[in-house]
Amino acid sequence: MKKAVVLSSGGIDSTTTMAIARHEGYEIFALSFRYGQRHEIELDAAARVAALNGAKEHLILNIELGRLGGSALTADIDVPKDRTADDIEGSIPVTYVPARNTIFLSYALAWAEVLQAADLFIGVTAVDYSGYPDCRPEYIKAFENMSNLAIKAAVEGTLRIRIHTPLIHMTKAQIIQRGVELGVDYGLTHSCYDPTESGSACGSCDSCLLRKKGFAEAGLSDPTQYGR
Amino acid sequence: MKKAVVLSSGGIDSTTTMAIARHEGYEIFALSFRYGQRHEIELDAAARVAALNGAKEHLILNIELGRLGGSALTADIDVPKDRTADDIEGSIPVTYVPARNTIFLSYALAWAEVLQAADLFIGVTAVDYSGYPDCRPEYIKAFENMSNLAIKAAVEGTLRIRIHTPLIHMTKAQIIQRGVELGVDYGLTHSCYDPTESGSACGSCDSCLLRKKGFAEAGLSDPTQYGR
Repeated sequence: MKKAVVLSSGGIDSTTTMAIARHEGYEIFALSFRYGQRHEIELDAAARVAALNGAKEHLILNIELGRLGGSALTADIDVPKDRTADDIEGSIPVTYVPARNTIFLSYALAWAEVLQAADLFIGVTAVDYSGYPDCRPEYIKAFENMSNLAIKAAVEGTLRIRIHTPLIHMTKAQIIQRGVELGVDYGLTHSCYDPTESGSACGSCDSCLLRKKGFAEAGLSDPTQYGR
Repeated sequence: MKKAVVLSSGGIDSTTTMAIARHEGYEIFALSFRYGQRHEIELDAAARVAALNGAKEHLILNIELGRLGGSALTADIDVPKDRTADDIEGSIPVTYVPARNTIFLSYALAWAEVLQAADLFIGVTAVDYSGYPDCRPEYIKAFENMSNLAIKAAVEGTLRIRIHTPLIHMTKAQIIQRGVELGVDYGLTHSCYDPTESGSACGSCDSCLLRKKGFAEAGLSDPTQYGR
């Protein structure tokens, strides 16, 4: 059985990506990070999702992105609320975490070499995205190219790294539709950047707004519990 | 004053690289990692080196490379001893850590964006190296290319990342000679992969052997205390 390292945040995109990797016949090695998020809820969601996809292993690495500063997701900066779709799509928001996908993919690359797994999956999307540069196809291609120069197994010819981005040209609605076809239970996933203490999604951060819009456009009901 | 993020392990190469960056007029932001090394001695050395170079900041990040496995430097695999120069140069050794420089440079990139520092320095060398693929010029170039697609500041045009590798075409002897010209005290540095409990260098791992050879070829005495 071919192995894949799948980056997992417990949200809609990475969960759908994992379901796709499983559907394509990969043995799943799920990788998540505790990186100074405001909450642990997304890691709980990632653990549920990994278990339901029969992941061979779910590794949660502690990393210290927060000590580098520079993001509302890891520092003491307010998460923006109630922005319009134009706001969200028009500029890179304060929830951007510097080089986040680069750091995540670097660890995925290291683990892939140890596992002798050629395939990495990441649920980036360049359509309904929030303007993050490290979700674009040209970035992913450059990371893949670098990877095959970086590791011993690639240089020795035993492993050729491929980075799979099955969602990259899909809207949030299309992603949800694909996931539902594959049997994903989105009630297990978590999207909110700024949940309440009881774990409810705020309903007004960019991530909640994109989630709501995705379910609405897909013509499906959103199982999320919103509310203060 | 232009800022540079300098990766620092407390060894000869990164210490000389930091002295070069300082000589070129950069304000130094030194970055080291506690990544499951067998010992803390190299971090103590890195702290001394940063202080002596007047670093504005020395950040030591905790990362968990050891949990990924796959290297004698982070797992329970014996460090090879008393290998010949041909052994050392002929193949990639078990002290190779999967994707190590990729992970290190990814954090350096993130910090550089937060600091608005365009310049990263890393003391890789493709000459007297131990066969590590992530020390070669083509790898560094690919990482630099990826970096400028990865971060918000590059995409918005406010920062263009350059990765400086001033040692890449130098032998260990040339590196030491350059460092001595710049006033580096190599007595403060630490190279050994497998020091004794009292902190002495073993004298027989690849890193000690390359260090000894470098001093011998430079015609200088090695200030290191070797011994069991």
